[in-house]
Amino acid sequence: MEADRAARVALTWLAEPGNRAVWEMVREHGAPGTLDRLLAGDVPDRRLRGAVAARAVAGDARRVAEIALRRGDRLGARLVVPSDPEWPSRLTDLETLELDAGGWINADIRPPLCFWVRGMWPLGEALDRSVAVVGSRAATEYGINVTTDLAYSVTRAGWTVLSGGAFGIDAAAHRGALAADGRTVAVLACGVERPYPAGNAALLDRIAENGLLISEWPIGAEPLRHRFLIRNRVIAAATAGTVVVEAAARSGATQTMSRVLALGRPAMVVPGPVTSAMSVGCHEILRSHPYARVVTSADEILEEVGRIGEYLATPPRGPERRHDKLDEETALVLESLPANGSTAPELIAAGARLSLRTVLRRLSLLESAGLVARTGDGYTLKHTPDHGRSDDD
Amino acid sequence: MEADRAARVALTWLAEPGNRAVWEMVREHGAPGTLDRLLAGDVPDRRLRGAVAARAVAGDARRVAEIALRRGDRLGARLVVPSDPEWPSRLTDLETLELDAGGWINADIRPPLCFWVRGMWPLGEALDRSVAVVGSRAATEYGINVTTDLAYSVTRAGWTVLSGGAFGIDAAAHRGALAADGRTVAVLACGVERPYPAGNAALLDRIAENGLLISEWPIGAEPLRHRFLIRNRVIAAATAGTVVVEAAARSGATQTMSRVLALGRPAMVVPGPVTSAMSVGCHEILRSHPYARVVTSADEILEEVGRIGEYLATPPRGPERRHDKLDEETALVLESLPANGSTAPELIAAGARLSLRTVLRRLSLLESAGLVARTGDGYTLKHTPDHGRSDDD
Repeated sequence: MEADRAARVALTWLAEPGNRAVWEMVREHGAPGTLDRLLAGDVPDRRLRGAVAARAVAGDARRVAEIALRRGDRLGARLVVPSDPEWPSRLTDLETLELDAGGWINADIRPPLCFWVRGMWPLGEALDRSVAVVGSRAATEYGINVTTDLAYSVTRAGWTVLSGGAFGIDAAAHRGALAADGRTVAVLACGVERPYPAGNAALLDRIAENGLLISEWPIGAEPLRHRFLIRNRVIAAATAGTVVVEAAARSGATQTMSRVLALGRPAMVVPGPVTSAMSVGCHEILRSHPYARVVTSADEILEEVGRIGEYLATPPRGPERRHDKLDEETALVLESLPANGSTAPELIAAGARLSLRTVLRRLSLLESAGLVARTGDGYTLKHTPDHGRSDDD
Repeated sequence: MEADRAARVALTWLAEPGNRAVWEMVREHGAPGTLDRLLAGDVPDRRLRGAVAARAVAGDARRVAEIALRRGDRLGARLVVPSDPEWPSRLTDLETLELDAGGWINADIRPPLCFWVRGMWPLGEALDRSVAVVGSRAATEYGINVTTDLAYSVTRAGWTVLSGGAFGIDAAAHRGALAADGRTVAVLACGVERPYPAGNAALLDRIAENGLLISEWPIGAEPLRHRFLIRNRVIAAATAGTVVVEAAARSGATQTMSRVLALGRPAMVVPGPVTSAMSVGCHEILRSHPYARVVTSADEILEEVGRIGEYLATPPRGPERRHDKLDEETALVLESLPANGSTAPELIAAGARLSLRTVLRRLSLLESAGLVARTGDGYTLKHTPDHGRSDDD
């Protein structure tokens, strides 16, 4: 199987990972057979043929793969392929993914051929209970704080937080998970030996030590812009659900969410101030996609991704009000009492539009519940902070 | 028809406006006939019979109505009834409204029997193109600013902003409309002569001068707590749609939204920071009701309430990127150029996985478009601020 492994590396060097035509050939002929065909120019897909020919000018694919594998060994990076026990199972959903939106990048959406992995944790185990947390590099303090909190709590609950290793929301997600003494996974768009962005080098090292750095691109590959967009399908497909915290309009994070939605996975959006440009992408997802879901807490995230009934978020409630547990007539009597001073039962009856007998019966109930007190000339409300005149909050 | 008007006033004094049983009797017997029956104790509904009997102790309903009408005349408040030309048409949807949720307050959801109106504007005309903007009294600076902006712009577009005259979001909505030299409508839960809350007295006077103060309750009625909840169905039903800006969990504003949704009207929610208690109710509505819609601008509000095609909000876009209008291959060539320095076409071809011929053709296109420049040893990117290496925002 060493031939299979080396061929997969060579293929991701000859064409971008996720390429439809390559993936279909590998399914039919296996990786080594596909590599033979590609290098011989025996390629039905015109565009792929041109790309491979151009790439072949730059080097010998087999030799490049050999060097990458040797460098990986030296750097402690292992190659994981679909026949390995640690290969993650969820990625098979990419086999049939179709995207509505046009554009050249939508061609490269098929499953990865292999992963380069830095870190001791078996890949499949790491991704089994994982949530992606993604967002803008130019995050605000609000976005950073919310992300750190959510990642911390999701990790505490035993889930893996996966992100893209970038500045801003990504870094906050990884940091929140590490702060919870958890392991976190960064999916890179370049070789796993490369600290990109350089400002996150120390963070990426910590992730490799405690969790995993993974990439489809061979050791030595550069973080070209379009690779981030290709990478995003892995973030969407490898996890049980994806949360976007802050995103500008038409950003990489909104592109990731379109893949999450196309895969039918939970697409979770943290809203923010409508006055913040960094929340525009989040709100746009909510406006465009009826299946995208607002989440405001780790509990709500776990409710979305957990197995049915495993987590149930408690809906937020206002302060319990005294009349919440009362029957209608009793509540009406209570509402009819003025905020201050005492009132005769006759006036309460008139105010509540109930018979005097009913009012007296209800008042005695309320008195024994400690909610009203009898005075010389009637009844008075026993004060607790929540009783006001208006309704509004 | 003077008997009809006086009877309607008497009926809203004997029972709360919106009462199902009263409304059904009025439909069958007319208002004067219903009043006769109620005062004679000839009432099929047990609870209504008790309420009317209790109320009758406090005064003579006909006499109370007479005094209220005389006081209204003196104060410049007119009574509007369904047979008047200015009666608003949308309220008929309340005739068939049914609410899932239990609770005593859900009984009082039928259409109003009459409105007291202060202000010169015909009521039906004022409400024809109207949007309700509601929310918490304990609003934050964020909520106040967003509300003022939205109300200003919605008013500028020729729409009436309707709200409840309370502190916080309500007041900001009215103020934003007045700042746009517009007319605004406040729906009160007490007599229209009463400046409630007192702190908004000057604002309510300005609304009466420029727009309308309206209420179902007769002159002299007090703003009892349950009346706000009864009033809210009018806010929901009288407008083309309702926007909630900030709301605590289980607040009056979320109750209004449940009526808006039950009526099938556009239920619009302005999101906010998930760290703000004043946005909890907004996010909860979005989480619970698939038909509630996120709105972030006046354009988006107008798109929801406008006649089909009248307004179309422009979806927010990121900065236009150079490759947006390019075909796939040209975009790929552009992406393959490094951010700095120049590159030979052969290397570009290898990077982009395209044939050298294709690359040269595309480069010449890009050169004539002013996006790349030829150098001694290849091609270089002409810089504009949006070209970065990553994808993220």
